[in-house]
Amino acid sequence: MEEPAMETLLLVLDLVGTFVFALSGATAGVQHRLDLFGVLVLSYAAGNAGGIIRDLLIGAVPPAAISDWRYLAVSLLAGIVTFWRPSGIGRLRSPVQLFDAAGLALFAVAGAQKALAFGLNPVMAALLGMLTGIGGGMTRDLLLAEIPTVLRVDLYAVAALAGAAVVVIGSVLWLPSTAVTIAGAILCFGLRFGAIRRGWHLPVADGREPPISLDC
Amino acid sequence: MEEPAMETLLLVLDLVGTFVFALSGATAGVQHRLDLFGVLVLSYAAGNAGGIIRDLLIGAVPPAAISDWRYLAVSLLAGIVTFWRPSGIGRLRSPVQLFDAAGLALFAVAGAQKALAFGLNPVMAALLGMLTGIGGGMTRDLLLAEIPTVLRVDLYAVAALAGAAVVVIGSVLWLPSTAVTIAGAILCFGLRFGAIRRGWHLPVADGREPPISLDC
Amino acid sequence: MEEPAMETLLLVLDLVGTFVFALSGATAGVQHRLDLFGVLVLSYAAGNAGGIIRDLLIGAVPPAAISDWRYLAVSLLAGIVTFWRPSGIGRLRSPVQLFDAAGLALFAVAGAQKALAFGLNPVMAALLGMLTGIGGGMTRDLLLAEIPTVLRVDLYAVAALAGAAVVVIGSVLWLPSTAVTIAGAILCFGLRFGAIRRGWHLPVADGREPPISLDC
Repeated sequence: MEEPAMETLLLVLDLVGTFVFALSGATAGVQHRLDLFGVLVLSYAAGNAGGIIRDLLIGAVPPAAISDWRYLAVSLLAGIVTFWRPSGIGRLRSPVQLFDAAGLALFAVAGAQKALAFGLNPVMAALLGMLTGIGGGMTRDLLLAEIPTVLRVDLYAVAALAGAAVVVIGSVLWLPSTAVTIAGAILCFGLRFGAIRRGWHLPVADGREPPISLDC
Repeated sequence: MEEPAMETLLLVLDLVGTFVFALSGATAGVQHRLDLFGVLVLSYAAGNAGGIIRDLLIGAVPPAAISDWRYLAVSLLAGIVTFWRPSGIGRLRSPVQLFDAAGLALFAVAGAQKALAFGLNPVMAALLGMLTGIGGGMTRDLLLAEIPTVLRVDLYAVAALAGAAVVVIGSVLWLPSTAVTIAGAILCFGLRFGAIRRGWHLPVADGREPPISLDC
Repeated sequence: MEEPAMETLLLVLDLVGTFVFALSGATAGVQHRLDLFGVLVLSYAAGNAGGIIRDLLIGAVPPAAISDWRYLAVSLLAGIVTFWRPSGIGRLRSPVQLFDAAGLALFAVAGAQKALAFGLNPVMAALLGMLTGIGGGMTRDLLLAEIPTVLRVDLYAVAALAGAAVVVIGSVLWLPSTAVTIAGAILCFGLRFGAIRRGWHLPVADGREPPISLDC
């Protein structure tokens, strides 16, 4: 009786994460003055590209975001809401950041678990968990011809990697998977929360002296 | 006796669509002053990326554009023609736009049918049909580090989606597939034609007040 | 007894190629002032994306770069070295260009052989060999929102294609695969070396009169 409840909870959180990531994609689309279709594409891409890339890499085709209509539905809902009420989303700014951190946490742990289930080695499962969390935002930025912000900003991908690593380490040590999943999600959320509120960040290389320009 | 004729017709139209999309890729490459190889890459990408992405997502590997040499041949032909006679292509401008609309129509209906044949649900089959139609142009623009024009311009993706939707709805209602395919292609072509000639377009969100800047 | 030695040699060269391509990715990341994580992502992408794309297209999932930890390890090593000692890499400039040409040569022939082993036709196997060689650099540039330099510069992709073609032609003619592999790698390396030292390049189309602006 525990298991179906856990599964339902994971699905709900997964869809919430998709919705919040889709909001970020739709918002970026509105800011770039795309038309309605463009906004909806960015919603879907931001909400689902991470999971789609992971599923392609582990051979789980068709990806869940393609075969399950609910991922599409929440993505489009987020896009439509943003398109007609952009200022309404603006007022939600701080809650959206928190939802986004929650979505990142969930995608990271869920992605790591799916990669483990498909037989990947632990290190790669952790990286695929991270990729699941950050892939949507990267795709959103690439579609807008911008350098993915996740490559620049503070502790976003690292938070996802830390959460995924907890899941993988727990799996290697045969710890109970529910507890490990919750711990990983909390760690990821906490790191991201700290980065937002306190400006935690990684070092940046001193690029003032151009080190090299390869010919290729 | 009907079926092989239909199949041959579809293959011919498919290759014509690939050729015309490849022309658009090669033209963009010449405008950006790429070398011969770069122009050929853009030809191939514009003509085939939509089908390749669809095939990866539904698990049809290797994609037809990889395993059938004819798709490569017509793509390279388009690239070479454009590279040496760009002004010749320029004179064809209006015919190229019509061919492009025809290619979009065919790719959309053929993509939807292939997705249905691989067991996807109807909504996703329609979206994959649309993606087959627009994926080539999106890839072309991404390779040139530009925001995909399909996200901006009038009724391009929506025309593809409408055509693909007709195929899917016809399939759900068990209508004869040849008739449904032709109807879908005509609808897509007609919408695109109206967008070109009469400027039909979708609404654009009022982006003057920046709605939100997410941290991620 | 010959075969395991050959296989070990190929693996070593493959990892050296990954390392050198990863250096080019990390260097580009440092120049764009990405943080440590961004630099490591670019290292991994530049070193492995070519092989990952090839493996997805031929249906070899999960790709070797995902399932074998050594590819990750050498990529991260290259990223860390570049991040903390960019000027050290700068002093190696000429050796890095030679390593890069060697990596390109090896990736091209190894990619073609893998595609043949998965049953692709000869022309497409040669193109997939080329894609294996150039895919990493293309992905690196796309992540930085730039037009892939391989589309612009002199004899980079063509060298990879020539090397891969030698492997494929040798396979069609049933020549001994070791000799053919070495010949293909030498041809690719030699062409690239000539392009670097003597400025060999392909023709560029005369783009001064804008040939056409498609609506799509």
